[in-house]
Amino acid sequence: MVEHAKSAGLDRVFSALADPTRRAILRALTRHPATINEIARPFPVSLNAISKHVMVLERAGLLLREIKGREHHCRIEPEPLRQADAWMEHYRRFWEVRLDALAVYVDKKFKTAKKGAAHGSLR
Amino acid sequence: MVEHAKSAGLDRVFSALADPTRRAILRALTRHPATINEIARPFPVSLNAISKHVMVLERAGLLLREIKGREHHCRIEPEPLRQADAWMEHYRRFWEVRLDALAVYVDKKFKTAKKGAAHGSLR
Repeated sequence: MVEHAKSAGLDRVFSALADPTRRAILRALTRHPATINEIARPFPVSLNAISKHVMVLERAGLLLREIKGREHHCRIEPEPLRQADAWMEHYRRFWEVRLDALAVYVDKKFKTAKKGAAHGSLR
Repeated sequence: MVEHAKSAGLDRVFSALADPTRRAILRALTRHPATINEIARPFPVSLNAISKHVMVLERAGLLLREIKGREHHCRIEPEPLRQADAWMEHYRRFWEVRLDALAVYVDKKFKTAKKGAAHGSLR
């Protein structure tokens, strides 16, 4: 049951991240909290569209909204991102293994080239 | 243009990851490459449904398919995951800062408790 809830949470987080405007909103919120109007300002889309994106981020738990009078103050909530990052952890070894293999290859090439140059200088 | 292509790539990757069956397929492929039939075996859904999930993963660049006769051999391609991981990197400091703050708090509590215990033993 816990695993199922965690999985549904990951569905919502990855789905929320699958949009460039929502990723840009999150990025902006890492600088400072902001109202919906402030969030919308740099985007060439309607306030209504931004409001919908904010709602998707909120449902995924990535954004916290505090209502003060008529203003909605939003800030980033990193915990769901930490969970997505933990999911990614398992796959990290795959590209790390690849980079290790590349390093060995480059090192070998470099040594061969050096050897060649040393032989050249003897001639 | 490069940024735009990278962003569209991230859209496809995060969207592909927003499904528990697709995440489970990727996880299975980290153990060894497999045919579509082998991939489908543990899932209680139709071969057709699995085939569609495989196609979504393939379009996101997360899965490579090699056709040998009538069999489709699939393996994981970690590069797009590395890109998603790089995107996540920027946010990592947020929960790291939180964990640091928690560590300071626990340390302070621990010291206060120790002090209290020391005073207690003097009585």
